[in-house]
Amino acid sequence: MKLLSFYKGSPKDSRVGVVYKDGKVIDLVSLYEYLYGYPPDWLTDLTKLLEGGSPAFRLVNELIDDFKKLDTNITSNFLLDEDNITFLPVVRPRKVFCVAVNYNEHGKEAGSASIEEPYIFMKRVDTLVAHRQPILIPKISSQVDHEIELAVIIGKKGKYISSKEAYEYIAGYTIFNDVSFRDLRKHSSPRYNINWLYAKNLDTASPIGPYLVTKDEIQDPHNLTIRLEVNGEIRQNGHTSSMIHKIPELIEYVSNGITLYPGDVISTGTPSGTGLGTGKFLKEGDVMVGYIEKIGKLENRIMRE
Amino acid sequence: MKLLSFYKGSPKDSRVGVVYKDGKVIDLVSLYEYLYGYPPDWLTDLTKLLEGGSPAFRLVNELIDDFKKLDTNITSNFLLDEDNITFLPVVRPRKVFCVAVNYNEHGKEAGSASIEEPYIFMKRVDTLVAHRQPILIPKISSQVDHEIELAVIIGKKGKYISSKEAYEYIAGYTIFNDVSFRDLRKHSSPRYNINWLYAKNLDTASPIGPYLVTKDEIQDPHNLTIRLEVNGEIRQNGHTSSMIHKIPELIEYVSNGITLYPGDVISTGTPSGTGLGTGKFLKEGDVMVGYIEKIGKLENRIMRE
Repeated sequence: MKLLSFYKGSPKDSRVGVVYKDGKVIDLVSLYEYLYGYPPDWLTDLTKLLEGGSPAFRLVNELIDDFKKLDTNITSNFLLDEDNITFLPVVRPRKVFCVAVNYNEHGKEAGSASIEEPYIFMKRVDTLVAHRQPILIPKISSQVDHEIELAVIIGKKGKYISSKEAYEYIAGYTIFNDVSFRDLRKHSSPRYNINWLYAKNLDTASPIGPYLVTKDEIQDPHNLTIRLEVNGEIRQNGHTSSMIHKIPELIEYVSNGITLYPGDVISTGTPSGTGLGTGKFLKEGDVMVGYIEKIGKLENRIMRE
Repeated sequence: MKLLSFYKGSPKDSRVGVVYKDGKVIDLVSLYEYLYGYPPDWLTDLTKLLEGGSPAFRLVNELIDDFKKLDTNITSNFLLDEDNITFLPVVRPRKVFCVAVNYNEHGKEAGSASIEEPYIFMKRVDTLVAHRQPILIPKISSQVDHEIELAVIIGKKGKYISSKEAYEYIAGYTIFNDVSFRDLRKHSSPRYNINWLYAKNLDTASPIGPYLVTKDEIQDPHNLTIRLEVNGEIRQNGHTSSMIHKIPELIEYVSNGITLYPGDVISTGTPSGTGLGTGKFLKEGDVMVGYIEKIGKLENRIMRE
């Protein structure tokens, strides 16, 4: 199942959608209202749907079955074109973890050797932006760069999760673009801002989406092509099989003393081809399209703030 | 004005209170319901009250005036004893920034010299815990430590804020305890977890509160005594005049490319006396009481997870 967060009129009127076929989305709130009445929170907020666990997902599956039984005159009321909706960040996590240097070739272009422990850092949750929302070039940077990544979305509360049971805690996968500001890394030395305050955490630095693809649709998350194009030119082109620290290990590492909640995001690192290696940075008007096999495309245009 | 977030019955029934006199809090939701009917969001959520700006604060002031006019038979219904309520983290920030090594004496005990730029790091927002809520010793640490700090709470959205105008963006002040896990700092080297994932960001690592004291009550935040006691023994005893990077400079630094929102927290560093210097770490059953002049006391008991 491909789930998304979106709205039609006001951003306050958020809702959950399911991709029915390419470019067409079932509006679960309108469908529920037509069939049954006032919708539960599960259908207005994808993070609450995740919190709802299997009963919530059972409801969504029942609604899709109901939908298929309806006359097409009627279904057209609940089937929206992706071009006519506004995407929201697919989840509202309590925290976003990223892994630096999790692909060897990227490690080389970043000037960092691979290391034994996962190299985790955080992005603040209010850096998240949705599919088709603009990414801002801030006044203080002229080296804005992309890092396309496969992101895991947590589906179940857990702590001290062993790598063996890690997949039980995954709801699904999405695309994450760890937008970075390379000329501000000088403020990131251990003597200065050890959390990459500027280099990773300026406004709009975390496009995410468009869909949460439930884990049943992706048998092996370490067997996906991953790519990023800028204005149609391929810049990053990799494969998730090249990850150094695999997803179960990352979940074990991050949940060590830290409770993970439904909606939390762990992004898994980027392959090579970033501006660090090529010297090509993002310019006003550029369009980035991140692609991951079995998930889809995450598109964002670059603007000046 | 001293504001707080609390509930009486269910945590979902959150509300804003105002300290009327020592230990006595006006329940603004019940008061509003009695006087006018269904309360606005401003009174159920202190962060929304901050977002409401001066109209919201005008309402609170009017309610306090109304309260004073009521008969004491009636006011007793809205005046709660602090011992009969459950405190919530005073705000729900989008982000929490901290400053390492912002007092010279603490820099010495931490083995870090003072530096020119503020040394900012982030704590994840879901580490926040309220006044009187327990702090957990995690299985993976035996060196849990306290860092009592004055925290600034943002009151107005802003970006690229100059130090000259910084005070305009402050709603008020509270107490923050930057609980730290010293034996996990080895995972914090620049080669490993540059954001102090373990050393600063395990569960319950950020007690905050009990009150937001509005800035009009604190003429000079750099002229306050600050202290932390463990089981009645003074461990940290300092003065905010010793801060290296003052509050306006911190706001300018942090808002450089990063939009600050009402409720966001900037904690300003800790004076000396932490376990790093004394070798005394927190044990099960210990009670920490942080005190800052003109704000009050933030109390948390240590438990094992």
